[in-house]
Amino acid sequence: MTTELVDAIEGLIEDYQDYNSSFVKVYNNFDNLDKLVKNNRPAIFKSVANNWEATKSWNKEYLSHKVTSEIEIAVTPNGNADALVEHHGVLHFLEPDTKSMRMDNFLNDISATPNRVLYLQSQNGNLSYPEYQGLAEDVPQSITEMDDVMENKPDAVNIWIGGPESVTSLHSDPYENIYVVVKGRKTFNLYPPTERYCLNFQKYPHGHYICDNNGEFTVKPSGETISWTPIDPNKSAEENSKHSPTYSKSRCLTVTVDEGDALYLPSGWFHHVSQKGSPCIAVNYWYDQDYSGEKFVMRQFYNRILEMLYNK
Amino acid sequence: MTTELVDAIEGLIEDYQDYNSSFVKVYNNFDNLDKLVKNNRPAIFKSVANNWEATKSWNKEYLSHKVTSEIEIAVTPNGNADALVEHHGVLHFLEPDTKSMRMDNFLNDISATPNRVLYLQSQNGNLSYPEYQGLAEDVPQSITEMDDVMENKPDAVNIWIGGPESVTSLHSDPYENIYVVVKGRKTFNLYPPTERYCLNFQKYPHGHYICDNNGEFTVKPSGETISWTPIDPNKSAEENSKHSPTYSKSRCLTVTVDEGDALYLPSGWFHHVSQKGSPCIAVNYWYDQDYSGEKFVMRQFYNRILEMLYNK
Repeated sequence: MTTELVDAIEGLIEDYQDYNSSFVKVYNNFDNLDKLVKNNRPAIFKSVANNWEATKSWNKEYLSHKVTSEIEIAVTPNGNADALVEHHGVLHFLEPDTKSMRMDNFLNDISATPNRVLYLQSQNGNLSYPEYQGLAEDVPQSITEMDDVMENKPDAVNIWIGGPESVTSLHSDPYENIYVVVKGRKTFNLYPPTERYCLNFQKYPHGHYICDNNGEFTVKPSGETISWTPIDPNKSAEENSKHSPTYSKSRCLTVTVDEGDALYLPSGWFHHVSQKGSPCIAVNYWYDQDYSGEKFVMRQFYNRILEMLYNK
Repeated sequence: MTTELVDAIEGLIEDYQDYNSSFVKVYNNFDNLDKLVKNNRPAIFKSVANNWEATKSWNKEYLSHKVTSEIEIAVTPNGNADALVEHHGVLHFLEPDTKSMRMDNFLNDISATPNRVLYLQSQNGNLSYPEYQGLAEDVPQSITEMDDVMENKPDAVNIWIGGPESVTSLHSDPYENIYVVVKGRKTFNLYPPTERYCLNFQKYPHGHYICDNNGEFTVKPSGETISWTPIDPNKSAEENSKHSPTYSKSRCLTVTVDEGDALYLPSGWFHHVSQKGSPCIAVNYWYDQDYSGEKFVMRQFYNRILEMLYNK
């Protein structure tokens, strides 16, 4: 039955690719947002944030002036926070160390120290934290067009500040996401939920980086494991195929989000993010996904079928 | 692996039932239509057709006056057109015979002749046929709110005229459907696409009824087979469970559409239809379903998995 199961899964991936475009469409306004959310299709919206106070004002001096409390910064030796890294010859999923520091020091050090990459990526609705209050007023509290489509306000609004070394490894979130680039530009590599099969999710040992006062890193395994994908879209297809024999069935959608533009990143889509600009600053709006209808439950079903196949 | 596959499928059915309501919601206008189409959820819209000329005028005399050419009428001994019927001890899928007759004769005979049930169910956009031109102008050419949601006009508009004996056996269509009851009332028994597993689709020999000039019926097998479900929602759960051991996992949504009301029947939903009123008259609008996004391809995947299970 395994062969038939593989045929059914590969048929699904091919069908999805046949019935959907191979690129991310670009729009000048949010008029089509409801249809895009309905069909879970990513899209770019141009010049969404051109008139935001954030886009006009946010620079090192302004940010340092507005954020005076210490903030939590992720610290890694190479910019790979929450990513698979080889440790003692074995791939581990490593979380970054976190340090409390002042905004001005963070922004000065962001790309200045070799082998020590800083990234403001605390997420979890960080823009509502007291320390960011002075910045929260420079961006809309929500994307009103998305509020209308989702019939809800965002669950979380996050600010991200990083340099060109910081990348976010391939993963998916259970949120509908409006991702706005305020300064710099970000490149997203995207795979639809149907292509989970191509990404060879496996369990890896989990751990943390520990950065000592001299800036030296050690790795502290937690004893836990985590399911993650070894695929890095910035590596060659040949290299990725070594990590996932089904990688060749995938069709990566690569899109760059320019300053002032927004990406609608549908829930469940796998995404890898890299950035340009120093600092590159983004604000994203996470909306709770809709669990009704067939979308969510069919994805759960598909993921269970994949588990069956992996555990056969 | 079969046990795991069954677990995954039954998990899908339970998830769908958990995340979606167990009844058909009723609305006074089409404001929520886009969300319902997005989530493939059936709904009733009250008093949609109250002001239609059809609702005001269509009676036997008016219809006979407006339709003077002969029309195609389905003829069966018991009202089960396109349904499973026992023939020589074996369930066959039988199509009705069709007769050309005048509207006035059809309406007089519709429930008058024992063992000979007439049903105007020619479908295929019959309201655009020349013989129905006089009636087509009494109903809207499309449901404008649905045109907006689907960004398209209907593929087909159909008129249905039948008596209380006529039923439509359980099946699904690849169309988004706005079904408007103009006279009488119709009861729909609905199952979501995830419950295909509970309906035990199997291949049955296919044939036609032949009605001779004396009104005697014979069955003419075609030599072909057709995949159909033996489930009849009007029979007891116990009886249906004999035909489908997984029937108990299903959750039928039963809804009655009153005169002047409309049902949104999402593509892929299984439906069984019975009616009251003599004649009961309906007009339905079939819109081409959206093949983009995940909905269609995930259903195809699910159906392939079911085929695997049936053929194991």
